[in-house]
Amino acid sequence: MMNFATLLAQDLAATPDLALEISQNLLTTNNVWMMLSTALVFIMHLGFAGVETGFGQAKNTVNILFKNTITPIIGIVSYAVVGFYLMYPGFDVPGWFSFDSAGWSMFWFSPENADVSADYASGGYTYWTDFLFQAMFAATAATIVSGAIAERVKISAYLIFTVIFVGLIYPLIGSWKWGGGALNEMGFYDFAGSTLVHSVGGWGALAGVILVGPRIGKYINGKTIEKPGASVPLAVIGVFMLWLGWFGFNGGSVLSADPALVSMVLVTTSLGACAGGLGGFFTAYFAFKRLDLGMLLNGILAGLVGITAGADVFTPASALLIGFVAGILVVLSAILMDKFKLDDVVGAVSVHLTCGIWGTLAVGIFSTNPEHSFLTQLTGVAICGAMAFGSAFLIFYILKITMGIRVSEEHEKSGLDSHEHGIRGYTIVYDE
Amino acid sequence: MMNFATLLAQDLAATPDLALEISQNLLTTNNVWMMLSTALVFIMHLGFAGVETGFGQAKNTVNILFKNTITPIIGIVSYAVVGFYLMYPGFDVPGWFSFDSAGWSMFWFSPENADVSADYASGGYTYWTDFLFQAMFAATAATIVSGAIAERVKISAYLIFTVIFVGLIYPLIGSWKWGGGALNEMGFYDFAGSTLVHSVGGWGALAGVILVGPRIGKYINGKTIEKPGASVPLAVIGVFMLWLGWFGFNGGSVLSADPALVSMVLVTTSLGACAGGLGGFFTAYFAFKRLDLGMLLNGILAGLVGITAGADVFTPASALLIGFVAGILVVLSAILMDKFKLDDVVGAVSVHLTCGIWGTLAVGIFSTNPEHSFLTQLTGVAICGAMAFGSAFLIFYILKITMGIRVSEEHEKSGLDSHEHGIRGYTIVYDE
Amino acid sequence: MMNFATLLAQDLAATPDLALEISQNLLTTNNVWMMLSTALVFIMHLGFAGVETGFGQAKNTVNILFKNTITPIIGIVSYAVVGFYLMYPGFDVPGWFSFDSAGWSMFWFSPENADVSADYASGGYTYWTDFLFQAMFAATAATIVSGAIAERVKISAYLIFTVIFVGLIYPLIGSWKWGGGALNEMGFYDFAGSTLVHSVGGWGALAGVILVGPRIGKYINGKTIEKPGASVPLAVIGVFMLWLGWFGFNGGSVLSADPALVSMVLVTTSLGACAGGLGGFFTAYFAFKRLDLGMLLNGILAGLVGITAGADVFTPASALLIGFVAGILVVLSAILMDKFKLDDVVGAVSVHLTCGIWGTLAVGIFSTNPEHSFLTQLTGVAICGAMAFGSAFLIFYILKITMGIRVSEEHEKSGLDSHEHGIRGYTIVYDE
Repeated sequence: MMNFATLLAQDLAATPDLALEISQNLLTTNNVWMMLSTALVFIMHLGFAGVETGFGQAKNTVNILFKNTITPIIGIVSYAVVGFYLMYPGFDVPGWFSFDSAGWSMFWFSPENADVSADYASGGYTYWTDFLFQAMFAATAATIVSGAIAERVKISAYLIFTVIFVGLIYPLIGSWKWGGGALNEMGFYDFAGSTLVHSVGGWGALAGVILVGPRIGKYINGKTIEKPGASVPLAVIGVFMLWLGWFGFNGGSVLSADPALVSMVLVTTSLGACAGGLGGFFTAYFAFKRLDLGMLLNGILAGLVGITAGADVFTPASALLIGFVAGILVVLSAILMDKFKLDDVVGAVSVHLTCGIWGTLAVGIFSTNPEHSFLTQLTGVAICGAMAFGSAFLIFYILKITMGIRVSEEHEKSGLDSHEHGIRGYTIVYDE
Repeated sequence: MMNFATLLAQDLAATPDLALEISQNLLTTNNVWMMLSTALVFIMHLGFAGVETGFGQAKNTVNILFKNTITPIIGIVSYAVVGFYLMYPGFDVPGWFSFDSAGWSMFWFSPENADVSADYASGGYTYWTDFLFQAMFAATAATIVSGAIAERVKISAYLIFTVIFVGLIYPLIGSWKWGGGALNEMGFYDFAGSTLVHSVGGWGALAGVILVGPRIGKYINGKTIEKPGASVPLAVIGVFMLWLGWFGFNGGSVLSADPALVSMVLVTTSLGACAGGLGGFFTAYFAFKRLDLGMLLNGILAGLVGITAGADVFTPASALLIGFVAGILVVLSAILMDKFKLDDVVGAVSVHLTCGIWGTLAVGIFSTNPEHSFLTQLTGVAICGAMAFGSAFLIFYILKITMGIRVSEEHEKSGLDSHEHGIRGYTIVYDE
Repeated sequence: MMNFATLLAQDLAATPDLALEISQNLLTTNNVWMMLSTALVFIMHLGFAGVETGFGQAKNTVNILFKNTITPIIGIVSYAVVGFYLMYPGFDVPGWFSFDSAGWSMFWFSPENADVSADYASGGYTYWTDFLFQAMFAATAATIVSGAIAERVKISAYLIFTVIFVGLIYPLIGSWKWGGGALNEMGFYDFAGSTLVHSVGGWGALAGVILVGPRIGKYINGKTIEKPGASVPLAVIGVFMLWLGWFGFNGGSVLSADPALVSMVLVTTSLGACAGGLGGFFTAYFAFKRLDLGMLLNGILAGLVGITAGADVFTPASALLIGFVAGILVVLSAILMDKFKLDDVVGAVSVHLTCGIWGTLAVGIFSTNPEHSFLTQLTGVAICGAMAFGSAFLIFYILKITMGIRVSEEHEKSGLDSHEHGIRGYTIVYDE
């Protein structure tokens, strides 16, 4: 028995270590998934750039690309400087505003103290992954605005708007639910951001569209004039990149690599995208009597936005239905926008606001979690909407009456590229 | 000793839990790999869209993009509705046809019962990942057809063909091997689908090319007239996306993240692609006396298709050889197709059928597994070919004598975009 | 107690297995990360192709794409044939040259003996992943050269240069540090290759630019004439793909999925990219009085190159500063290059050489590891620079006096595509 006892002692000493190694391994795996989700959300910014450049006119290509390249940069930097600590402040009691100044100090002055152990975030990821995954989300709200008001907004005004909207408004609203604030307390549910990301951006886009006004020649004698996009292939590349990125946007929002939950989320997300595409396609076919590629594409995005609020609590059957309805809504919304002479270059309001609201409300109808309530969802939509639209309207309004938010008629007509950037988007010539 | 005994009891209670946690961790890791492989296979659909849009003429760009965007949607939805249960029916005895009706009910009516534990699929992935990974494969067969018959096929006919071919024919043939059917029983080997995916699509493409006929002006007085592609950069983007996606197509076909096997598969896959590119480049250089980018690109795809049947049983040296031969074959096959006035816009038959057959037979020659036999491989190729070509021919033929499968001469000449979709693919103008 | 003893015996037998399983699980996770990093580095080759095709003139599009497609092929194949065993020779004593002939034999003649266990590389990845990850890096050096001397270099000369530079020079220099050679011994630090990859490519580019001379009409009467790029959207796609790929380039250079270190590396990498973009944007704004998209893009790349030497030893604050300085340097360097009539089509020397040196020296200034020394860093930069520039100059010089390295004036003016490749990059016409 003595030998046994010795061995046993070793074993007992070893086992706790094994348990620790196991939890460390799980952190490693979870963190791999979250880092790759971060990379996937990053590539969504190329997706937005593709959609907007593809649907925008060739004379504004460089301007659009400039905005879409610098927007994620502003997003990441402003999130590092302000947003992260505003969005995840660690409320003492759930509320509407707080700031994690200890976190701020650590990020900048003692990063070596960051918690990178399995104790952080239930072992789902490290402190650094947490920051970067959230930072990639942050710029999305402004990118959505960019697409709606493209081709006539003054770029300086857009940049100032973006710094404020991404640096302050987006993380503040986000803190109310994901940061553990007041909306979270009241039981509002938004899995990956139909409201907190997409409708916030959509409200900003709507405010911008109203204040900046339609492009010259868009609405003439009650008719809507199509402005042909420069490159449909670019728009398609953009939509595929967005769909790909949504694997990380929704899949990463599980906040771990939990195999059951993440894989189900990917299925509902994909079914939502497919059904949205079909809904957009069929609705446009009945409305316009053509095979409308633009509405097939926006239908896919609509389905993705719609599924995002509850991708983890919808069944595959619900996902199909929710996506299909989103596809219908995006076409109807686009028609309605034109009725009101609200000129949205890429249909950003219809995709992100209309379907963001729809998806959030759909949680109140289709969620498999009985605690989710339609009324609470509606309340959350209204509160976030009031804040997002109100603040975006205010920012744009102040910019409008001070520096102006719209380029001159001459610049708009000849295109923003030659005036502000000095080069053209495409130079396809074969003789010198 | 009493203290010891108590501790020992705790330890013994703990150890089984540790074993369970370890197997759960392995599932989590495997599932991360499989989900990312799913995302990579998804992006192959953008790859196909790029190749086809790049090599197709500008006047048909929107039509091509429309098809390539809706094809994966049809693939995923039809796979959820029919294909998955037809392809993995759980044969009682290996056979030719079965349907997993219990699985169907669970997917749609009691998804909460899906097996997401480490007991499913030897812990390689969850039920939901299984579905989605396979669903991403499903549309590939139709996409291949799309590329071959582009620029003159009636889109309504193509869509009907796709629903049937992807929803029924592809999963049925797949069930014979991957679903545990009769071909599996006889020892046929097809690791990731040189035959089950690529040649099935290639046979469909050949049937389509024969029945739909060549484009107007393609073959005049015995000469083949080149129709210049709209955008070579798009074709290159497409090929890179396909190569990238093949990391998941072949790497994911290991059906776990097994480090030894998956990493070796990625090496043989990449060497096959490289050698295919070199084979295509050199063959085209001798045949056409130019640095033929198209054949460099199709050579890469040829090498990838060729390596796919046995990426897990080929050595690096074999991979180089198999890829190089595939690169030679794809050029010769393309020349032969034109000889027979078989007009294949992107060379889909040469890439996917010719090299799909070559790769499958190569398993019978080069496999490191002595149980693989050339004759069995040949038998499998023949059986799958008869079914795929026969059914595709029948579907297209019935469509041809009923609704027609070809657009009018006028539409073809002026391009499909303006007639069916109402917009142009590119609008690069700098004055209004 | 007897029962207990029996159980105990089982337990003791089981525990070593558990430990083994745990280390195998960790290998599996690490290897998943490294394989995906490999895929991300692979897609950087599409990024380079996008940048170069986008900034190059339309008449040379096919030529550029041809080079950028065949370069990674040459890189992977030559690395399998020579480079891998030259770069990781397993020096007996740290030195300047050695070759792992045993590794060579195993790769080609007994791949079944490859070490795919958790004993290889501290369980960070398998032998095959090791090869493929490094192989994807290898072509980068040549791709950088390609961008600088585009639009007038003879493709045959470029291909010969690439085979030698990628097959011999790059791995030889790499062996001095990463292969455990003399630079490693002296304490030189280069985390992911600011010097070993980027400046090596940059030195090659500089040698090429000097010997091949500027494009016709680039410098006239002391003025620099802009040659407008064919497609700015392609350049943006390229930069986003490069940034995405850098998640694997730097993240994978940790050589495991270590959650703390990898996630911090991704944060410093992203902050470096952002700050570089801002630095390039502001500097260009002051220098050129316009919103210069090209310098925003090159600033991002400059920041990425700059951060690469010490992404694992810089704090977030240092990362911001290093990236911002890199963004300033890339603009100043580009201005200086033009001053000296050194015509670099994409600014490759400014991005990869200037900022590669800066980043490597920055390790000597900002590293959190006190063992890193500025002088040692400078020494490493000088030694690698002498070898890279010297050998590249020699190769290009010999090619110049033998076969010639520049196309004829006629070919250059009419574009390389029609002469060498027989097709055009873009054919966007709407009538036949």
